[in-house]
Amino acid sequence: MGRKIVRRRVIRATREGGWRPREEKLAGEEPLEIRFGHTSYTTSMRTPGDDFDMVAGFLVGEGVIRASEQLLSLRYCAGTDEEGNQTFNVIEVQLGPGATPPDAAKARNVVTSSACGICGTNSIDEVRKKAGFELDASAGSIELETLLDLPDTLRESQKLFSSTGGVHAAGLFSTAGELLILREDVGRHNAVDKVIGAALRSGMLPLKDTVLQVSGRASFELVQKAAMAGIPLLTAVSAPSSLAVDLADETGLTLAAFSRKHSVNIYTHAHRINKA
Amino acid sequence: MGRKIVRRRVIRATREGGWRPREEKLAGEEPLEIRFGHTSYTTSMRTPGDDFDMVAGFLVGEGVIRASEQLLSLRYCAGTDEEGNQTFNVIEVQLGPGATPPDAAKARNVVTSSACGICGTNSIDEVRKKAGFELDASAGSIELETLLDLPDTLRESQKLFSSTGGVHAAGLFSTAGELLILREDVGRHNAVDKVIGAALRSGMLPLKDTVLQVSGRASFELVQKAAMAGIPLLTAVSAPSSLAVDLADETGLTLAAFSRKHSVNIYTHAHRINKA
Repeated sequence: MGRKIVRRRVIRATREGGWRPREEKLAGEEPLEIRFGHTSYTTSMRTPGDDFDMVAGFLVGEGVIRASEQLLSLRYCAGTDEEGNQTFNVIEVQLGPGATPPDAAKARNVVTSSACGICGTNSIDEVRKKAGFELDASAGSIELETLLDLPDTLRESQKLFSSTGGVHAAGLFSTAGELLILREDVGRHNAVDKVIGAALRSGMLPLKDTVLQVSGRASFELVQKAAMAGIPLLTAVSAPSSLAVDLADETGLTLAAFSRKHSVNIYTHAHRINKA
Repeated sequence: MGRKIVRRRVIRATREGGWRPREEKLAGEEPLEIRFGHTSYTTSMRTPGDDFDMVAGFLVGEGVIRASEQLLSLRYCAGTDEEGNQTFNVIEVQLGPGATPPDAAKARNVVTSSACGICGTNSIDEVRKKAGFELDASAGSIELETLLDLPDTLRESQKLFSSTGGVHAAGLFSTAGELLILREDVGRHNAVDKVIGAALRSGMLPLKDTVLQVSGRASFELVQKAAMAGIPLLTAVSAPSSLAVDLADETGLTLAAFSRKHSVNIYTHAHRINKA
Protein backbone atom coordinates (compact mmCIF):
# COMPACT_ATOMS: atom_id res chain seq x y z
CA MET A 1 0.00 0.00 0.00
CA GLY A 2 2.99 2.27 0.34
CA ARG A 3 1.44 4.17 3.20
CA LYS A 4 4.25 3.47 5.67
CA ILE A 5 6.45 5.98 3.92
CA VAL A 6 5.01 9.05 2.25
CA ARG A 7 6.93 11.40 -0.04
CA ARG A 8 6.55 15.16 0.29
CA ARG A 9 8.17 18.22 -1.25
CA VAL A 10 10.02 20.30 1.32
CA ILE A 11 12.27 23.33 1.33
CA ARG A 12 15.65 22.81 2.94
CA ALA A 13 16.68 26.21 4.32
CA THR A 14 20.13 26.87 5.77
CA ARG A 15 21.64 29.63 7.87
CA GLU A 16 24.11 30.24 5.04
CA GLY A 17 21.30 31.30 2.72
CA GLY A 18 20.35 27.97 1.13
CA TRP A 19 16.71 27.61 0.05
CA ARG A 20 16.43 24.42 -1.93
CA PRO A 21 13.26 22.39 -2.68
CA ARG A 22 13.70 18.64 -2.40
CA GLU A 23 11.72 15.47 -1.84
CA GLU A 24 11.64 13.91 1.63
CA LYS A 25 10.34 10.63 3.00
CA LEU A 26 8.01 10.90 5.97
CA ALA A 27 6.68 8.26 8.31
CA GLY A 28 3.05 7.59 7.41
CA GLU A 29 0.39 8.42 10.01
CA GLU A 30 -3.32 7.58 9.67
CA PRO A 31 -6.14 6.98 12.15
CA LEU A 32 -7.09 3.41 12.99
CA GLU A 33 -10.54 2.74 14.39
CA ILE A 34 -11.20 -0.42 16.42
CA ARG A 35 -14.79 -1.64 16.44
CA PHE A 36 -16.69 -4.37 18.23
CA GLY A 37 -19.72 -5.10 16.05
CA HIS A 38 -21.13 -1.69 15.16
CA THR A 39 -19.67 0.04 18.18
CA SER A 40 -16.50 2.04 17.77
CA TYR A 41 -14.19 1.45 20.71
CA THR A 42 -11.24 3.69 20.05
CA THR A 43 -9.51 5.61 17.27
CA SER A 44 -5.80 6.20 17.43
CA MET A 45 -3.18 7.56 15.10
CA ARG A 46 -0.70 5.00 13.84
CA THR A 47 1.68 4.19 11.01
CA PRO A 48 -0.23 1.85 8.66
CA GLY A 49 1.07 -1.70 8.58
CA ASP A 50 0.85 -4.65 10.99
CA ASP A 51 -2.60 -3.36 11.88
CA PHE A 52 -3.92 -6.73 13.06
CA ASP A 53 -0.88 -7.06 15.33
CA MET A 54 -1.52 -3.62 16.72
CA VAL A 55 -5.16 -4.33 17.50
CA ALA A 56 -4.29 -7.68 19.10
CA GLY A 57 -1.55 -6.12 21.21
CA PHE A 58 -3.76 -3.23 22.22
CA LEU A 59 -6.40 -5.69 23.44
CA VAL A 60 -3.77 -7.56 25.47
CA GLY A 61 -2.77 -4.29 27.09
CA GLU A 62 -6.40 -3.48 27.86
CA GLY A 63 -6.79 -6.89 29.52
CA VAL A 64 -9.43 -8.02 27.01
CA ILE A 65 -7.53 -11.06 25.65
CA ARG A 66 -4.48 -13.08 26.67
CA ALA A 67 -4.36 -15.93 24.14
CA SER A 68 -4.77 -16.12 20.38
CA GLU A 69 -7.86 -18.37 20.72
CA GLN A 70 -9.69 -15.45 22.32
CA LEU A 71 -9.36 -13.53 19.08
CA LEU A 72 -11.85 -15.11 16.69
CA SER A 73 -11.34 -12.73 13.81
CA LEU A 74 -10.00 -9.38 12.77
CA ARG A 75 -11.12 -7.86 9.50
CA TYR A 76 -10.98 -4.55 7.70
CA CYS A 77 -14.40 -2.96 7.58
CA ALA A 78 -15.63 -1.81 4.19
CA GLY A 79 -14.88 1.82 5.03
CA THR A 80 -14.22 3.96 2.00
CA ASP A 81 -12.96 7.48 1.49
CA GLU A 82 -14.54 10.21 -0.63
CA GLU A 83 -13.12 8.69 -3.80
CA GLY A 84 -14.62 5.32 -2.91
CA ASN A 85 -11.29 3.65 -2.06
CA GLN A 86 -11.11 1.20 0.83
CA THR A 87 -9.36 3.05 3.65
CA PHE A 88 -7.98 0.07 5.57
CA ASN A 89 -8.42 2.27 8.61
CA VAL A 90 -11.32 0.49 10.35
CA ILE A 91 -10.92 -2.94 11.94
CA GLU A 92 -13.74 -5.02 13.33
CA VAL A 93 -12.91 -7.42 16.14
CA GLN A 94 -14.74 -10.63 16.90
CA LEU A 95 -13.79 -12.16 20.21
CA GLY A 96 -13.72 -15.89 20.94
CA PRO A 97 -14.97 -17.79 23.97
CA GLY A 98 -13.80 -16.51 27.34
CA ALA A 99 -13.24 -12.94 26.19
CA THR A 100 -15.67 -10.13 26.91
CA PRO A 101 -15.78 -6.99 24.77
CA PRO A 102 -14.61 -4.02 26.80
CA ASP A 103 -17.19 -1.72 28.28
CA ALA A 104 -17.90 0.80 25.55
CA ALA A 105 -18.79 3.36 28.21
CA LYS A 106 -15.17 3.28 29.36
CA ALA A 107 -13.68 3.47 25.88
CA ARG A 108 -11.51 6.33 24.74
CA ASN A 109 -13.70 7.41 21.92
CA VAL A 110 -17.17 6.03 21.80
CA VAL A 111 -19.09 6.52 18.60
CA THR A 112 -21.94 4.18 17.76
CA SER A 113 -23.24 3.84 14.26
CA SER A 114 -25.34 1.30 12.47
CA ALA A 115 -23.43 1.44 9.22
CA CYS A 116 -19.92 0.11 9.10
CA GLY A 117 -19.08 1.56 5.73
CA ILE A 118 -19.21 5.22 6.54
CA CYS A 119 -17.77 5.32 10.02
CA GLY A 120 -14.22 5.04 8.80
CA THR A 121 -14.43 8.43 7.19
CA ASN A 122 -16.67 9.77 9.95
CA SER A 123 -14.22 9.16 12.74
CA ILE A 124 -11.35 10.36 10.63
CA ASP A 125 -13.19 13.58 9.97
CA GLU A 126 -13.83 13.81 13.67
CA VAL A 127 -10.09 13.71 14.27
CA ARG A 128 -9.74 16.79 12.07
CA LYS A 129 -11.48 19.23 14.33
CA LYS A 130 -12.57 22.60 13.12
CA ALA A 131 -9.86 25.17 13.70
CA GLY A 132 -10.87 27.55 16.47
CA PHE A 133 -9.41 30.54 14.64
CA GLU A 134 -8.71 31.31 11.00
CA LEU A 135 -4.95 31.50 10.56
CA ASP A 136 -4.02 34.88 9.14
CA ALA A 137 -1.76 34.35 6.13
CA SER A 138 0.05 37.62 6.80
CA ALA A 139 0.68 36.96 10.50
CA GLY A 140 3.60 35.17 12.10
CA SER A 141 6.40 35.96 9.70
CA ILE A 142 9.89 35.31 11.13
CA GLU A 143 13.52 35.59 10.07
CA LEU A 144 15.14 32.22 9.35
CA GLU A 145 18.06 32.94 11.72
CA THR A 146 15.61 33.64 14.53
CA LEU A 147 13.77 30.39 13.84
CA LEU A 148 17.01 28.39 13.88
CA ASP A 149 17.94 29.83 17.29
CA LEU A 150 14.72 28.71 19.01
CA PRO A 151 15.72 25.10 19.84
CA ASP A 152 18.83 26.30 21.72
CA THR A 153 16.87 28.90 23.66
CA LEU A 154 14.26 26.29 24.55
CA ARG A 155 16.88 23.79 25.66
CA GLU A 156 18.76 26.34 27.76
CA SER A 157 15.55 27.36 29.51
CA GLN A 158 14.44 23.82 30.37
CA LYS A 159 14.69 23.18 34.06
CA LEU A 160 13.31 19.67 34.38
CA PHE A 161 15.22 18.24 31.46
CA SER A 162 18.62 19.10 32.81
CA SER A 163 17.91 17.23 36.02
CA THR A 164 15.93 14.26 34.72
CA GLY A 165 16.68 14.00 31.00
CA GLY A 166 13.17 12.69 30.55
CA VAL A 167 10.77 15.38 29.51
CA HIS A 168 9.42 17.14 26.47
CA ALA A 169 9.28 20.91 26.23
CA ALA A 170 7.12 23.33 24.31
CA GLY A 171 7.95 27.01 24.04
CA LEU A 172 5.82 29.83 22.72
CA PHE A 173 7.99 32.53 21.15
CA SER A 174 7.31 35.93 19.66
CA THR A 175 8.30 36.26 16.01
CA ALA A 176 11.25 38.30 17.30
CA GLY A 177 12.52 35.17 19.06
CA GLU A 178 11.56 36.15 22.59
CA LEU A 179 10.47 33.25 24.80
CA LEU A 180 6.97 34.00 26.08
CA ILE A 181 5.87 30.76 27.77
CA LEU A 182 7.76 27.51 28.41
CA ARG A 183 6.27 24.30 29.79
CA GLU A 184 7.68 20.80 30.29
CA ASP A 185 6.01 17.45 30.72
CA VAL A 186 6.64 13.72 30.29
CA GLY A 187 3.98 13.93 27.58
CA ARG A 188 4.66 15.96 24.46
CA HIS A 189 0.99 16.86 24.09
CA ASN A 190 0.71 17.94 27.69
CA ALA A 191 3.57 20.41 27.32
CA VAL A 192 1.72 22.01 24.42
CA ASP A 193 -1.60 21.99 26.31
CA LYS A 194 0.12 23.75 29.22
CA VAL A 195 1.57 26.45 26.97
CA ILE A 196 -1.73 27.11 25.21
CA GLY A 197 -3.67 27.05 28.46
CA ALA A 198 -1.29 29.55 30.05
CA ALA A 199 -1.72 31.80 27.01
CA LEU A 200 -5.50 31.52 27.12
CA ARG A 201 -5.61 32.33 30.81
CA SER A 202 -3.57 35.48 30.10
CA GLY A 203 -6.07 36.49 27.43
CA MET A 204 -3.56 36.02 24.60
CA LEU A 205 -5.71 33.94 22.21
CA PRO A 206 -5.67 33.85 19.19
CA LEU A 207 -1.88 33.62 19.28
CA LYS A 208 -1.37 35.59 16.09
CA ASP A 209 2.28 36.58 15.90
CA THR A 210 3.83 33.65 17.68
CA VAL A 211 5.84 30.53 16.95
CA LEU A 212 5.52 27.27 18.84
CA GLN A 213 8.79 25.34 19.20
CA VAL A 214 8.59 21.73 20.41
CA SER A 215 11.46 19.53 21.56
CA GLY A 216 10.45 16.31 19.83
CA ARG A 217 8.56 15.31 16.74
CA ALA A 218 5.62 17.05 15.09
CA SER A 219 2.56 14.82 15.13
CA PHE A 220 -0.89 15.39 13.70
CA GLU A 221 -2.23 16.23 17.15
CA LEU A 222 0.36 18.94 17.79
CA VAL A 223 -0.50 20.63 14.50
CA GLN A 224 -4.14 20.43 15.49
CA LYS A 225 -3.53 21.95 18.91
CA ALA A 226 -1.47 24.78 17.42
CA ALA A 227 -4.11 25.54 14.77
CA MET A 228 -6.91 25.48 17.37
CA ALA A 229 -5.09 28.21 19.31
CA GLY A 230 -4.41 30.32 16.23
CA ILE A 231 -0.64 29.74 16.22
CA PRO A 232 0.52 30.25 12.62
CA LEU A 233 3.92 28.51 12.86
CA LEU A 234 4.95 25.22 14.47
CA THR A 235 8.58 24.12 14.45
CA ALA A 236 10.00 20.83 15.76
CA VAL A 237 13.47 19.51 16.48
CA SER A 238 12.65 16.08 15.04
CA ALA A 239 10.59 14.67 12.19
CA PRO A 240 6.98 15.39 11.29
CA SER A 241 4.49 12.70 10.34
CA SER A 242 2.75 12.66 6.98
CA LEU A 243 -0.62 13.59 8.47
CA ALA A 244 0.91 16.47 10.42
CA VAL A 245 2.08 17.90 7.09
CA ASP A 246 -1.32 17.31 5.46
CA LEU A 247 -3.19 19.05 8.25
CA ALA A 248 -0.75 21.97 8.35
CA ASP A 249 -1.19 22.36 4.61
CA GLU A 250 -5.00 22.36 4.92
CA THR A 251 -5.22 24.77 7.84
CA GLY A 252 -2.70 27.27 6.48
CA LEU A 253 -0.15 26.62 9.24
CA THR A 254 3.57 26.83 8.53
CA LEU A 255 5.24 23.59 9.62
CA ALA A 256 9.01 23.38 10.03
CA ALA A 257 10.90 20.37 11.40
CA PHE A 258 14.38 18.87 11.79
CA SER A 259 15.31 22.33 13.09
CA ARG A 260 19.01 21.86 13.82
CA LYS A 261 20.90 25.11 14.38
CA HIS A 262 22.20 25.44 10.81
CA SER A 263 19.30 24.12 8.78
CA VAL A 264 15.61 23.36 8.90
CA ASN A 265 13.05 21.70 6.64
CA ILE A 266 9.98 23.74 5.77
CA TYR A 267 7.03 21.55 4.86
CA THR A 268 4.13 23.94 4.35
CA HIS A 269 3.36 27.63 3.81
CA ALA A 270 7.00 28.69 3.64
CA HIS A 271 6.03 32.31 2.97
CA ARG A 272 6.09 33.04 6.71
CA ILE A 273 9.83 32.33 6.92
CA ASN A 274 12.18 35.00 5.56
CA LYS A 275 15.27 33.63 3.81
CA ALA A 276 18.65 34.18 5.42
CA MET B 1 4.77 19.85 46.14
CA GLY B 2 8.00 18.37 44.86
CA ARG B 3 6.19 16.01 42.55
CA LYS B 4 7.74 17.36 39.37
CA ILE B 5 10.99 15.65 40.22
CA VAL B 6 11.06 12.37 42.11
CA ARG B 7 14.18 10.78 43.58
CA ARG B 8 14.78 7.04 43.19
CA ARG B 9 17.62 4.64 44.03
CA VAL B 10 19.05 3.05 40.90
CA ILE B 11 21.95 0.76 40.06
CA ARG B 12 24.37 2.14 37.51
CA ALA B 13 25.84 -0.89 35.71
CA THR B 14 28.70 -0.63 33.22
CA ARG B 15 30.19 -2.95 30.64
CA GLU B 16 33.47 -2.71 32.51
CA GLY B 17 31.95 -4.40 35.55
CA GLY B 18 30.66 -1.40 37.50
CA TRP B 19 27.57 -2.03 39.69
CA ARG B 20 27.04 1.05 41.78
CA PRO B 21 23.85 2.15 43.56
CA ARG B 22 23.13 5.84 43.33
CA GLU B 23 20.28 8.29 43.57
CA GLU B 24 18.67 9.61 40.41
CA LYS B 25 16.11 12.30 39.66
CA LEU B 26 13.15 11.26 37.56
CA ALA B 27 10.45 13.32 35.87
CA GLY B 28 7.26 12.98 37.89
CA GLU B 29 4.26 11.33 36.22
CA GLU B 30 0.77 11.11 37.73
CA PRO B 31 -2.73 10.78 36.31
CA LEU B 32 -4.87 13.90 36.00
CA GLU B 33 -8.62 13.53 35.78
CA ILE B 34 -10.74 16.29 34.21
CA ARG B 35 -14.35 16.47 35.38
CA PHE B 36 -17.41 18.45 34.40
CA GLY B 37 -19.67 18.40 37.44
CA HIS B 38 -19.72 14.79 38.58
CA THR B 39 -18.84 13.40 35.18
CA SER B 40 -15.30 12.38 34.48
CA TYR B 41 -14.29 13.45 31.00
CA THR B 42 -10.77 12.16 30.60
CA THR B 43 -7.80 10.92 32.59
CA SER B 44 -4.31 11.38 31.22
CA MET B 45 -0.81 10.91 32.57
CA ARG B 46 1.11 14.11 33.08
CA THR B 47 3.93 15.70 35.04
CA PRO B 48 2.28 17.51 37.98
CA GLY B 49 2.50 21.28 37.83
CA ASP B 50 0.71 23.94 35.76
CA ASP B 51 -2.34 21.70 35.94
CA PHE B 52 -4.85 24.52 35.39
CA ASP B 53 -2.90 25.58 32.29
CA MET B 54 -2.95 22.04 31.03
CA VAL B 55 -6.71 21.67 31.46
CA ALA B 56 -7.35 25.05 29.83
CA GLY B 57 -5.09 24.22 26.90
CA PHE B 58 -6.62 20.79 26.50
CA LEU B 59 -10.07 22.37 26.27
CA VAL B 60 -8.86 24.80 23.61
CA GLY B 61 -7.54 21.84 21.61
CA GLU B 62 -10.86 20.04 21.97
CA GLY B 63 -12.68 23.11 20.69
CA VAL B 64 -14.60 23.59 23.96
CA ILE B 65 -13.30 27.08 24.78
CA ARG B 66 -11.42 29.82 22.97
CA ALA B 67 -11.31 32.71 25.44
CA SER B 68 -10.54 32.94 29.14
CA GLU B 69 -14.08 34.23 29.89
CA GLN B 70 -15.45 30.86 28.82
CA LEU B 71 -13.58 29.26 31.69
CA LEU B 72 -15.53 30.20 34.81
CA SER B 73 -13.50 28.18 37.29
CA LEU B 74 -11.01 25.38 37.68
CA ARG B 75 -10.58 23.77 41.07
CA TYR B 76 -8.95 20.72 42.58
CA CYS B 77 -11.59 18.24 43.72
CA ALA B 78 -11.32 16.94 47.25
CA GLY B 79 -9.87 13.65 46.06
CA THR B 80 -7.71 11.93 48.64
CA ASP B 81 -5.40 8.93 48.54
CA GLU B 82 -5.41 5.96 50.96
CA GLU B 83 -3.57 7.99 53.57
CA GLY B 84 -6.14 10.75 53.35
CA ASN B 85 -3.87 13.23 51.58
CA GLN B 86 -5.29 15.48 48.88
CA THR B 87 -4.05 14.05 45.57
CA PHE B 88 -4.28 17.21 43.45
CA ASN B 89 -5.01 14.82 40.59
CA VAL B 90 -8.68 15.65 39.95
CA ILE B 91 -9.78 18.98 38.48
CA GLU B 92 -13.36 20.13 38.14
CA VAL B 93 -14.16 22.54 35.33
CA GLN B 94 -16.96 25.08 35.34
CA LEU B 95 -17.58 26.66 31.97
CA GLY B 96 -18.77 30.20 31.43
CA PRO B 97 -21.38 31.57 29.02
CA GLY B 98 -21.00 30.51 25.41
CA ALA B 99 -19.16 27.28 26.16
CA THR B 100 -20.82 23.88 26.12
CA PRO B 101 -19.38 20.94 28.03
CA PRO B 102 -18.12 18.31 25.60
CA ASP B 103 -20.33 15.32 24.90
CA ALA B 104 -19.38 12.83 27.60
CA ALA B 105 -20.32 10.00 25.26
CA LYS B 106 -17.41 11.03 23.06
CA ALA B 107 -14.93 11.44 25.86
CA ARG B 108 -11.81 9.35 26.11
CA ASN B 109 -12.56 7.81 29.46
CA VAL B 110 -16.05 8.18 30.74
CA VAL B 111 -16.63 7.32 34.35
CA THR B 112 -19.56 8.82 36.17
CA SER B 113 -19.72 8.93 39.92
CA SER B 114 -21.81 10.85 42.37
CA ALA B 115 -19.05 11.38 44.89
CA CYS B 116 -16.20 13.64 44.00
CA GLY B 117 -13.96 12.60 46.85
CA ILE B 118 -13.25 9.06 45.90
CA CYS B 119 -12.99 9.26 42.16
CA GLY B 120 -9.46 10.54 42.21
CA THR B 121 -8.18 7.29 43.61
CA ASN B 122 -10.75 5.28 41.64
CA SER B 123 -9.58 6.41 38.27
CA ILE B 124 -5.96 6.13 39.28
CA ASP B 125 -6.56 2.54 40.31
CA GLU B 126 -8.24 2.01 36.99
CA VAL B 127 -5.10 3.13 35.25
CA ARG B 128 -3.20 0.38 37.04
CA LYS B 129 -4.81 -2.55 35.32
CA LYS B 130 -4.49 -6.03 36.65
CA ALA B 131 -1.48 -7.76 35.13
CA GLY B 132 -2.62 -10.46 32.72
CA PHE B 133 0.13 -12.82 33.88
CA GLU B 134 2.12 -13.17 37.09
CA LEU B 135 5.73 -12.30 36.31
CA ASP B 136 7.96 -15.23 37.22
CA ALA B 137 10.80 -13.95 39.37
CA SER B 138 13.16 -16.61 38.03
CA ALA B 139 12.38 -15.97 34.34
CA GLY B 140 14.03 -13.53 32.00
CA SER B 141 17.55 -13.37 33.35
CA ILE B 142 20.08 -11.83 30.95
CA GLU B 143 23.80 -11.02 30.79
CA LEU B 144 24.54 -7.32 31.13
CA GLU B 145 26.64 -7.29 27.94
CA THR B 146 23.74 -8.79 26.00
CA LEU B 147 21.38 -6.15 27.38
CA LEU B 148 23.74 -3.33 26.42
CA ASP B 149 23.92 -4.62 22.83
CA LEU B 150 20.16 -4.52 22.25
CA PRO B 151 19.77 -0.81 21.32
CA ASP B 152 22.35 -1.17 18.53
CA THR B 153 20.70 -4.31 17.18
CA LEU B 154 17.33 -2.57 17.27
CA ARG B 155 18.65 0.50 15.50
CA GLU B 156 20.41 -1.51 12.80
CA SER B 157 17.25 -3.47 12.11
CA GLN B 158 14.98 -0.43 11.83
CA LYS B 159 13.89 0.09 8.26
CA LEU B 160 11.52 3.02 8.54
CA PHE B 161 13.75 5.08 10.79
CA SER B 162 16.67 5.16 8.42
CA SER B 163 14.50 6.57 5.67
CA THR B 164 12.26 8.94 7.63
CA GLY B 165 14.01 9.58 10.94
CA GLY B 166 10.62 9.89 12.56
CA VAL B 167 9.50 6.66 14.14
CA HIS B 168 9.73 4.73 17.37
CA ALA B 169 10.76 1.10 17.47
CA ALA B 170 10.09 -1.75 19.86
CA GLY B 171 11.96 -5.03 19.68
CA LEU B 172 11.23 -8.26 21.47
CA PHE B 173 14.45 -10.16 22.15
CA SER B 174 15.26 -13.56 23.62
CA THR B 175 17.39 -13.42 26.75
CA ALA B 176 20.24 -14.61 24.52
CA GLY B 177 19.96 -11.32 22.60
CA GLU B 178 18.25 -12.69 19.50
CA LEU B 179 15.74 -10.30 17.87
CA LEU B 180 12.38 -12.07 17.71
CA ILE B 181 9.95 -9.36 16.63
CA LEU B 182 10.55 -5.74 15.58
CA ARG B 183 7.89 -3.16 14.88
CA GLU B 184 8.01 0.56 14.14
CA ASP B 185 5.41 3.29 14.39
CA VAL B 186 5.07 7.06 14.75
CA GLY B 187 3.57 6.24 18.16
CA ARG B 188 5.75 4.63 20.81
CA HIS B 189 2.77 2.76 22.29
CA ASN B 190 1.69 1.47 18.89
CA ALA B 191 5.09 -0.07 18.22
CA VAL B 192 4.79 -1.98 21.51
CA ASP B 193 1.18 -2.99 20.75
CA LYS B 194 2.30 -4.33 17.37
CA VAL B 195 5.09 -6.40 18.93
CA ILE B 196 2.83 -7.88 21.61
CA GLY B 197 0.03 -8.53 19.13
CA ALA B 198 2.38 -10.34 16.76
CA ALA B 199 3.58 -12.47 19.68
CA LEU B 200 0.04 -13.26 20.78
CA ARG B 201 -1.00 -14.22 17.27
CA SER B 202 1.97 -16.66 17.16
CA GLY B 203 0.81 -18.19 20.44
CA MET B 204 3.84 -16.90 22.36
CA LEU B 205 2.08 -15.39 25.40
CA PRO B 206 3.02 -15.17 28.23
CA LEU B 207 6.39 -13.88 26.99
CA LYS B 208 8.40 -15.46 29.77
CA ASP B 209 12.05 -15.40 28.74
CA THR B 210 12.06 -12.23 26.71
CA VAL B 211 13.23 -8.65 26.91
CA LEU B 212 11.44 -5.69 25.37
CA GLN B 213 13.76 -2.96 24.09
CA VAL B 214 12.19 0.38 23.18
CA SER B 215 13.81 3.23 21.28
CA GLY B 216 12.55 6.11 23.38
CA ARG B 217 11.51 6.70 26.95
CA ALA B 218 9.86 4.29 29.37
CA SER B 219 6.44 5.58 30.38
CA PHE B 220 3.93 4.12 32.81
CA GLU B 221 1.87 2.79 29.92
CA LEU B 222 4.77 0.90 28.36
CA VAL B 223 5.50 -0.83 31.68
CA GLN B 224 1.82 -1.70 31.88
CA LYS B 225 1.73 -3.13 28.37
CA ALA B 226 4.86 -5.23 29.02
CA ALA B 227 3.50 -6.56 32.31
CA MET B 228 0.14 -7.40 30.75
CA ALA B 229 1.94 -9.60 28.20
CA GLY B 230 4.12 -11.30 30.82
CA ILE B 231 7.37 -9.67 29.66
CA PRO B 232 9.70 -9.65 32.69
CA LEU B 233 12.22 -7.06 31.47
CA LEU B 234 11.73 -3.69 29.79
CA THR B 235 14.71 -1.62 28.72
CA ALA B 236 14.68 1.85 27.18
CA VAL B 237 17.22 4.06 25.46
CA SER B 238 15.97 7.18 27.24
CA ALA B 239 14.61 8.09 30.66
CA PRO B 240 11.80 6.43 32.61
CA SER B 241 9.09 8.36 34.42
CA SER B 242 8.55 8.06 38.15
CA LEU B 243 5.29 6.14 37.77
CA ALA B 244 6.87 3.74 35.29
CA VAL B 245 9.38 2.85 38.02
CA ASP B 246 6.65 2.54 40.65
CA LEU B 247 4.55 0.22 38.53
CA ALA B 248 7.56 -1.91 37.51
CA ASP B 249 8.43 -2.22 41.19
CA GLU B 250 4.88 -3.30 42.08
CA THR B 251 4.45 -5.82 39.30
CA GLY B 252 7.86 -7.45 39.66
CA LEU B 253 9.12 -6.22 36.30
CA THR B 254 12.78 -5.35 35.77
CA LEU B 255 13.05 -1.84 34.38
CA ALA B 256 16.28 -0.59 32.82
CA ALA B 257 16.73 2.74 31.06
CA PHE B 258 19.34 5.14 29.69
CA SER B 259 20.76 2.05 27.99
CA ARG B 260 23.75 3.51 26.15
CA LYS B 261 26.21 0.90 24.89
CA HIS B 262 28.59 1.10 27.86
CA SER B 263 26.22 1.63 30.75
CA VAL B 264 22.63 1.32 31.82
CA ASN B 265 20.54 2.31 34.85
CA ILE B 266 18.60 -0.47 36.54
CA TYR B 267 15.58 0.86 38.41
CA THR B 268 13.79 -2.25 39.70
CA HIS B 269 14.29 -5.97 40.29
CA ALA B 270 17.96 -5.95 39.27
CA HIS B 271 18.28 -9.69 40.03
CA ARG B 272 17.39 -10.53 36.43
CA ILE B 273 20.52 -8.80 35.11
CA ASN B 274 23.82 -10.65 35.52
CA LYS B 275 26.77 -8.38 36.29
CA ALA B 276 29.51 -8.06 33.69
